[in-house]
Amino acid sequence: MVYFDNSATTKPCSKAIEYINEALTNNWANPSSLYDLGMNAEILVSKARQAIAKVISAREDEIIFTSSGTEANNTAVMAALYRKGIGKRIITTEIEHPSVLETVKRLEDEGFEVIRLKAQSDGTVSLSQLESCLDSKTVLVSIMMVNNEIGTIQPIKEAAKLIRKLSPRAYFHCDAVQAFGKVSINVKDLDVDMLTASAHKIHGPKGVGFLYCKKGVAIKPFITGGGQEKGLRSGTESVPLIAGFLGAVESLPDLKKQQAQLREIKEYAISKFKECEKIIINSPCRSVPFILNISVMGYRSETLLHFLESKQIYVSSGSACAKGEQSYVLSALGFDKKRTDSALRLSFSRYTEKEEIDLCLSALVEAVKRLRPSNI
Amino acid sequence: MVYFDNSATTKPCSKAIEYINEALTNNWANPSSLYDLGMNAEILVSKARQAIAKVISAREDEIIFTSSGTEANNTAVMAALYRKGIGKRIITTEIEHPSVLETVKRLEDEGFEVIRLKAQSDGTVSLSQLESCLDSKTVLVSIMMVNNEIGTIQPIKEAAKLIRKLSPRAYFHCDAVQAFGKVSINVKDLDVDMLTASAHKIHGPKGVGFLYCKKGVAIKPFITGGGQEKGLRSGTESVPLIAGFLGAVESLPDLKKQQAQLREIKEYAISKFKECEKIIINSPCRSVPFILNISVMGYRSETLLHFLESKQIYVSSGSACAKGEQSYVLSALGFDKKRTDSALRLSFSRYTEKEEIDLCLSALVEAVKRLRPSNI
Repeated sequence: MVYFDNSATTKPCSKAIEYINEALTNNWANPSSLYDLGMNAEILVSKARQAIAKVISAREDEIIFTSSGTEANNTAVMAALYRKGIGKRIITTEIEHPSVLETVKRLEDEGFEVIRLKAQSDGTVSLSQLESCLDSKTVLVSIMMVNNEIGTIQPIKEAAKLIRKLSPRAYFHCDAVQAFGKVSINVKDLDVDMLTASAHKIHGPKGVGFLYCKKGVAIKPFITGGGQEKGLRSGTESVPLIAGFLGAVESLPDLKKQQAQLREIKEYAISKFKECEKIIINSPCRSVPFILNISVMGYRSETLLHFLESKQIYVSSGSACAKGEQSYVLSALGFDKKRTDSALRLSFSRYTEKEEIDLCLSALVEAVKRLRPSNI
Repeated sequence: MVYFDNSATTKPCSKAIEYINEALTNNWANPSSLYDLGMNAEILVSKARQAIAKVISAREDEIIFTSSGTEANNTAVMAALYRKGIGKRIITTEIEHPSVLETVKRLEDEGFEVIRLKAQSDGTVSLSQLESCLDSKTVLVSIMMVNNEIGTIQPIKEAAKLIRKLSPRAYFHCDAVQAFGKVSINVKDLDVDMLTASAHKIHGPKGVGFLYCKKGVAIKPFITGGGQEKGLRSGTESVPLIAGFLGAVESLPDLKKQQAQLREIKEYAISKFKECEKIIINSPCRSVPFILNISVMGYRSETLLHFLESKQIYVSSGSACAKGEQSYVLSALGFDKKRTDSALRLSFSRYTEKEEIDLCLSALVEAVKRLRPSNI
């Protein structure tokens, strides 16, 4: 099996599974309970919080566990709702994940002014466009670190500088779901107020994520109730999944080495794929080595996806969330319909090997030979 | 170890753990992915949905998976926000779980009129009070099935009849977190529009719950994004936890037999506890056999809790969520401070045995002998 869909989800690593089992079997009390069993569960949650905080150079008390990156993004964006006294301008980009875009839309329906920055041809947003939009009424800016479909890296640090200068009261949120555990993140250096990540993109379990929320940044809870997570996120903590997140974080390799290894894989893939004249590369130069978006011109993504599937090679057409719909990300980059309709996303992990690239390419070459071009 | 805190959380059963592991190891793809691996994950989610729907006599497509009972309650209550065209009255009770009360409070802050029905001395709400509050402007009624602190069973079916008659456009939501898998629930017979439950109260994992939402009941999603759960709850499904929920549901015993067994346990406990003159029973007659709330007069709950803990007997003071604060539920029932300050909740499971009741009682008798009464 060749699994090239690691941006959709990853295979849980053995330490994540081990920790989940330990929590389910021996540490299953409610962390809010006042007796020792509850305390043990709380200590485990706290240990995970510390380990995660360390990865992004944050403090332990700045990490709020959520049930997903999506919930963390909802929480961050909805924070704008409680700051409308300051102003009603929200700035984001047109190529954010739906969990930001859909939530921003809700606020737009409630009277917020939403500006969606254009993606340039390489997928980055223009800092000068951002500069021209920032004003004293801006309450929230939300820009993703790494785009989930094409892998573009946004200039977060540079954006933060502009935001601090021109909209000092705005909160700056960064969706780092595709970046956490893959590229080095230092929240202080980046100067973001909030940052989102998810466990299941780094070989942890599905169902747990976190929102980094800088000390002093006042957000209201999104899910209300028993007041867990210092009142910021209610609901009994999913101790087993948080333990699994810890296992995944403890299993992270040296990020620089991983990047170098995957850069080699990606460059190898690009050089090989260029041998097939039907294939064009959609991912821009300035993109993470984990994601390679290509188009096999003349062949519909879904047809190719299923052809590859028949050979146990797994890729996606756009993102998993989009379920085969035309990619708004590729359209935003100015690619024509022919190119977006034939796009495939290959997303790698630290377990990816060059031989798998070869297998994928041969399968695509075979597809081009055997299949009739689609009517697109 | 004597674990009498099953209303706070339960020990995951072996089938739940087995299914979680199977999902983590062999069925870890993203259910939204278009290839066979994704399909397999989706089939597993669907299997769990069917099994859960069956327990409450619902249809499969009426079950929305959430990350907790708390999130499901938030979702149900926030549904009122999108129906304010009809009216702005919300009716609930003063002894709901905080995940309903706090969420209702948010709506109150946004201009909704909230009526909190009084609890009578037995913990039930008065149907005539409900009747007098229902009007054509009522958009939501939320009443829990079983109270988490004292075990009172509310007259849900009778309430539904009044609501249909007097507020035909209102949605009726029932928080059944402490009831699901313990008392028989038939949503059609009860005539509720929405119903909440959670896996970790029935020997499933923490981090997954569901909202039953009757077909035709139009709610807006609470968490927005990729459009999972038919657009009603975004975020990659936590397949392992949903599988664990399935394992817990498949392991449910015959509910009537379980009730009978636990009724015997509870009656035994009440008869034994009456031997100690310091102990008074707080749970009303009409309460579930799983929950027994008592006060050990003159002794502070937390002191007793820790004394019992030293003997590996685990109970709670109020609910786990309250973290030792004075119980608003017992206060609402009209109990004085002395009684609420010395309250303990014992909550049983199908694994509870009479010998454990004896152990708990001896420990309490010993506490009364050895400890100095608290200054309450």
